[in-house]
Amino acid sequence: MRRSSSRSEPPGLFDGVLARGPVRDAVSDQAWLSALLTVEAALAWVQAEVGLVPPAAAEAIADACRPERFDVAALGRAAAQGGNPVIPLVETLRALVGPAHARHVHHGATSQDVLDSAGMLVAFRALEHLLADLAGAANAAAHLARTHRDTLLAGRTLLQRAVPVTFGLLAANWMAGIDSAGRRLADVRRHRLAVQLGGPAGTLAGLGPDLPGRLAAVLGLATPVLPWHTERTRIADLAGALGSTAGAAAKPARDVTLLAETEVGEVAEGRPGGSSSMPHKQNPVAAVSTLGAAAQAPGLVATLLAAMPQELQRGTGGWHAEWLPLRELLTATGSAAAWLRDCLENLVVYPDRMRANLPPGPADPGFAAALVDRALAARS
Amino acid sequence: MRRSSSRSEPPGLFDGVLARGPVRDAVSDQAWLSALLTVEAALAWVQAEVGLVPPAAAEAIADACRPERFDVAALGRAAAQGGNPVIPLVETLRALVGPAHARHVHHGATSQDVLDSAGMLVAFRALEHLLADLAGAANAAAHLARTHRDTLLAGRTLLQRAVPVTFGLLAANWMAGIDSAGRRLADVRRHRLAVQLGGPAGTLAGLGPDLPGRLAAVLGLATPVLPWHTERTRIADLAGALGSTAGAAAKPARDVTLLAETEVGEVAEGRPGGSSSMPHKQNPVAAVSTLGAAAQAPGLVATLLAAMPQELQRGTGGWHAEWLPLRELLTATGSAAAWLRDCLENLVVYPDRMRANLPPGPADPGFAAALVDRALAARS
Amino acid sequence: MRRSSSRSEPPGLFDGVLARGPVRDAVSDQAWLSALLTVEAALAWVQAEVGLVPPAAAEAIADACRPERFDVAALGRAAAQGGNPVIPLVETLRALVGPAHARHVHHGATSQDVLDSAGMLVAFRALEHLLADLAGAANAAAHLARTHRDTLLAGRTLLQRAVPVTFGLLAANWMAGIDSAGRRLADVRRHRLAVQLGGPAGTLAGLGPDLPGRLAAVLGLATPVLPWHTERTRIADLAGALGSTAGAAAKPARDVTLLAETEVGEVAEGRPGGSSSMPHKQNPVAAVSTLGAAAQAPGLVATLLAAMPQELQRGTGGWHAEWLPLRELLTATGSAAAWLRDCLENLVVYPDRMRANLPPGPADPGFAAALVDRALAARS
Amino acid sequence: MRRSSSRSEPPGLFDGVLARGPVRDAVSDQAWLSALLTVEAALAWVQAEVGLVPPAAAEAIADACRPERFDVAALGRAAAQGGNPVIPLVETLRALVGPAHARHVHHGATSQDVLDSAGMLVAFRALEHLLADLAGAANAAAHLARTHRDTLLAGRTLLQRAVPVTFGLLAANWMAGIDSAGRRLADVRRHRLAVQLGGPAGTLAGLGPDLPGRLAAVLGLATPVLPWHTERTRIADLAGALGSTAGAAAKPARDVTLLAETEVGEVAEGRPGGSSSMPHKQNPVAAVSTLGAAAQAPGLVATLLAAMPQELQRGTGGWHAEWLPLRELLTATGSAAAWLRDCLENLVVYPDRMRANLPPGPADPGFAAALVDRALAARS
Repeated sequence: MRRSSSRSEPPGLFDGVLARGPVRDAVSDQAWLSALLTVEAALAWVQAEVGLVPPAAAEAIADACRPERFDVAALGRAAAQGGNPVIPLVETLRALVGPAHARHVHHGATSQDVLDSAGMLVAFRALEHLLADLAGAANAAAHLARTHRDTLLAGRTLLQRAVPVTFGLLAANWMAGIDSAGRRLADVRRHRLAVQLGGPAGTLAGLGPDLPGRLAAVLGLATPVLPWHTERTRIADLAGALGSTAGAAAKPARDVTLLAETEVGEVAEGRPGGSSSMPHKQNPVAAVSTLGAAAQAPGLVATLLAAMPQELQRGTGGWHAEWLPLRELLTATGSAAAWLRDCLENLVVYPDRMRANLPPGPADPGFAAALVDRALAARS
Repeated sequence: MRRSSSRSEPPGLFDGVLARGPVRDAVSDQAWLSALLTVEAALAWVQAEVGLVPPAAAEAIADACRPERFDVAALGRAAAQGGNPVIPLVETLRALVGPAHARHVHHGATSQDVLDSAGMLVAFRALEHLLADLAGAANAAAHLARTHRDTLLAGRTLLQRAVPVTFGLLAANWMAGIDSAGRRLADVRRHRLAVQLGGPAGTLAGLGPDLPGRLAAVLGLATPVLPWHTERTRIADLAGALGSTAGAAAKPARDVTLLAETEVGEVAEGRPGGSSSMPHKQNPVAAVSTLGAAAQAPGLVATLLAAMPQELQRGTGGWHAEWLPLRELLTATGSAAAWLRDCLENLVVYPDRMRANLPPGPADPGFAAALVDRALAARS
Repeated sequence: MRRSSSRSEPPGLFDGVLARGPVRDAVSDQAWLSALLTVEAALAWVQAEVGLVPPAAAEAIADACRPERFDVAALGRAAAQGGNPVIPLVETLRALVGPAHARHVHHGATSQDVLDSAGMLVAFRALEHLLADLAGAANAAAHLARTHRDTLLAGRTLLQRAVPVTFGLLAANWMAGIDSAGRRLADVRRHRLAVQLGGPAGTLAGLGPDLPGRLAAVLGLATPVLPWHTERTRIADLAGALGSTAGAAAKPARDVTLLAETEVGEVAEGRPGGSSSMPHKQNPVAAVSTLGAAAQAPGLVATLLAAMPQELQRGTGGWHAEWLPLRELLTATGSAAAWLRDCLENLVVYPDRMRANLPPGPADPGFAAALVDRALAARS
Repeated sequence: MRRSSSRSEPPGLFDGVLARGPVRDAVSDQAWLSALLTVEAALAWVQAEVGLVPPAAAEAIADACRPERFDVAALGRAAAQGGNPVIPLVETLRALVGPAHARHVHHGATSQDVLDSAGMLVAFRALEHLLADLAGAANAAAHLARTHRDTLLAGRTLLQRAVPVTFGLLAANWMAGIDSAGRRLADVRRHRLAVQLGGPAGTLAGLGPDLPGRLAAVLGLATPVLPWHTERTRIADLAGALGSTAGAAAKPARDVTLLAETEVGEVAEGRPGGSSSMPHKQNPVAAVSTLGAAAQAPGLVATLLAAMPQELQRGTGGWHAEWLPLRELLTATGSAAAWLRDCLENLVVYPDRMRANLPPGPADPGFAAALVDRALAARS
């Protein structure tokens, strides 16, 4: 039943840098449209199963729910009238199925049922890509940790040279952070992205208590105990996990910019960027872009958390305030993960320079090697 | 020299609700492309004035700087390589003017000179629209204040009925907040949106100390004392003024949702929205959309403030972290202003219901009328 | 080994409203001092176990680690010199144990080992109280849900009367949000609050790979695979869970302020507050204070997330930026939980008024009762 | 009439690092208590002037308004009942003046009148100190700019060596940012910190339209056109200016940490900090503490902006949500300013090392010297 977005939108002016990777398409307007239609079709389908709508209507609805029959721009424009794009989408869908089936479209549902369920589908798919890039970055960090298990590196605290460590231990630290954020994100994806279905005021009037579970099964989302129109801990959990992931991605990127400094010179990016004015520059573009993407996350998380206390049965603005920030947060975090993967998979390491930069005194990295081994073992 | 973006992009799925009004087009990719090209052309122009580039080159560059000759998607894609869209834009521009003039394109400038100057142009134009909507909203509030100078209303503190006020005084409060935010925003627009020009490390090497002033004059922006590549108080001032404006717009919107509650019923929107499930509903869509747009501002302001400490001569991520949030903040605040204007210009007021809801006791609104008069007088 | 802070500090001017409940004492300076000393003593203890320090030294250290022998103000003042309060604390401790044992104090550890471990202890204890208040609030909501399972209430969407629901369903929604946030918070408390031990650059040089586990066992914290001096996903997870909890607490509080509005009058607080100017007012102080406390959380979460990318082996400011916001976030969220518990445990419900406010039409709350039953069953 | 807080509270555990400088005392509970009492006394005074209260009552009230007669802890505790500390403060004050004058205490005012006016007084005084430290930091930067007008330095973009600049130009950039933020902050202090006076619902009932101006004159604050109980652009302007200041302070601090890196070694702090584990370390404690303090600002600004849309005549939580964040924001920004001043006034510069680190090629810093001259001239 899960229909993937077939059309990819052309990149915008800043997309190459800040909306990188497959997450961009996964949260596009086309992906949202596709998800909204998937939800409407699935709703009719499960309602046919329990006899709430005639099978012929469900078939007609499923048939009409093809993205190419809808015009995003027209829906976007019309959304202004009622305050959300589901209202014109349902109108269009009713027109498409004709008078015989029109009243079975969106039966018993409210706009937020469809928009929230679609949002969860969009997030579910986007996270699949994001988690793949995150795993790629963590694997690259693990490879660096293994390879450089014993490569001495100057420890630096407050950017002052301290005692020796190994580059492997630093890479294992990166890996641990990425893995930890990824585990949580995968957990949120599996357990907290739930279908939304409750009807106008969340009582399932005209729908029945089993319908959310049936719809969830078809859509591959979790089943909520209650409708969650104004109980937004799911959004908060997703936001928190994404914020943590962005921070975990920014940490290695920041370290790469520091180790790649001209005066330090201990690593370099494998595919450095140029400059419009200084052709000789070897800019750590992947690390810088990771940082630029990730730095957008904390503010967006704050927006989503601040939107939580939504009034009674439907929020007066709090719900609407989630739509764009959630998309932007998925995009920013997904871009950070994609850039970091690039950065770490292609990182060039200069062990000789690392050795040359060691502080005076015994080159003793303590139990760094054992820690690397332990971290790698804990992973598998 | 100011070229306005002629092409309008089709609205996205959420644009009708959350990217409303003319600000949307003013911050679009097309508007950015147009601004970037305006800056490159103006740069060549002022360099021709002082003899840094041949007049023929400046003419050829100005001629090539037509948005329709550039492909946003291609620039966006190529931007990934060097980390910003100016690098491929300059390459394209050089190819367009041919080998005779290529080296005069972008002479002595750095990517950030062009991107920051273009960003200021984009903001300058967007604020023109935003300030117009803000003025419209304030005028509507002033009209309500004047009309309902003596219309009694129950004062409500902590949402409990307190002593009487007038609806005019409440509307004057709305007006005062919008006006105050608008004044500051206009001030930032005039004095803080400055041209950026410094060259690779901000020394004006190969450019000359007079060039920023000349470029500013052509572009209609302020002249900075120093290049501000990593001195970001201008961005912070703009962000703060926008954040304050969003809050000032949200205040009346919140009040409208409360006064329009079924149980209170003292105002209604003139163009209420419907519902996908309850056709009888009269939703205060404009107020709710104002709130939904405005609630995105605080987190975006935080992002822009957190990006301020940019490293040495060019930030490693902090600069990049500004691009999208600044656009989103202009869009959110502009949408809030546009929706609020709609809301207040069409607001229906029910004085009888206000009177019926008064608390028991004398209907004495104190000096409310005098305060309204004073606020209106202070405005003119 | 866990020593609870015996001394309670007098409340500040805003503490009654915004630093309510036992969390306040749990995060006080005294609690921090106690935790720092607990960590130093435990460190010596486990080092004695493995023969790194003589048992007599460990005993002398444990004996010296009594809060009453330390002066918070003096430590606070002296902290300015080295940049954290552990440096003067260790100096004082060394002076207290005398020259015979001084070098065994803080053996092999770095300031961040002790401060982070103490911070985790402080959070662990604070969360115990916070979770108790959260459980109290959820239980109160569950009681309301059970009691008012069939009490009809007007559903309100965008604050406009919609179709009927039950007050029990609304209370079950509150319960579900609080429970969900509480489960996550308990999970973070159990699995993510880990001991910190790594030495100056995190290699466990001079300490040994088993020491973190031994220290964790003594302190009752989790054992990390690696030192996490600059891998801050633990802090991010804690912050995210607290932010979600604050939002889950604010939701019912917002609803109470709305249902308690004079014009709605469907609930009232059992212990309303007065006014300095209007003695007749019955202000929903508990709900308002819940909102005031909870509204501080999103910004603090953003601060903690933005501080994540900490440089190499020790952050230059990011670490320091965590100390106060973490305390403030625990306090704000703990206060919100304590106020909400007060609010819900004493809530007065007016079913007659609820019935009088129902929308016209059939009083059919759909499957609200079944949903309440399901939510209560899922809880036990 | 302005009474300065005579008692200073002992520093807390983190105050030496994160609540540094005179701002700390200026925002303390004692300072707040003093300000609250100053407002109550001034209110009675101006009411005596216009004949609203008997002169003898005003004298008795002024006499009673001595901080040492009030117990902060008791007020803090009692504040929980009514939701703010002014309610018990007024009760205490009434008891102190006795039955003859009690009804003249707080005549016609509401709690928020007194709390907001006191908050503005607290901010006014705190900003005096903050601006002094900011000016000190800017002067130190100006001195560095002048002294090192021609000291060559490697320009570094994305932390990669680029073309030459001068250290003077970098210091001038620091100066420009600090000065710009300081000017705005001084402007907000002078024009936007206004007295609050409106009575229970802001109509000046029982007070009269001239009283706010009279009270403002006595307190040295601005006179508002209208009461601003729920028109919070003043708070937003203050927050925005503080956020910008924190960022402007963090920029030089970040640069100092980078230039002080062991591998770069171009500057050092004059009073570096030690380490609990590595006695040889020369940590840039002042710069790091500046960063740690300043990083708390963006989230606090977001909280204050998000609190702006306050309901009707008194916010249900938004107002309360301002109290602590405003204090924390003043403290964080003030600490950042004080630390930065320390850092820059004592900065040790190594021109030889700067020269040794120059990129290959001609050592031409363009028009850096002219820019420094211009920036210094623009300042005087």
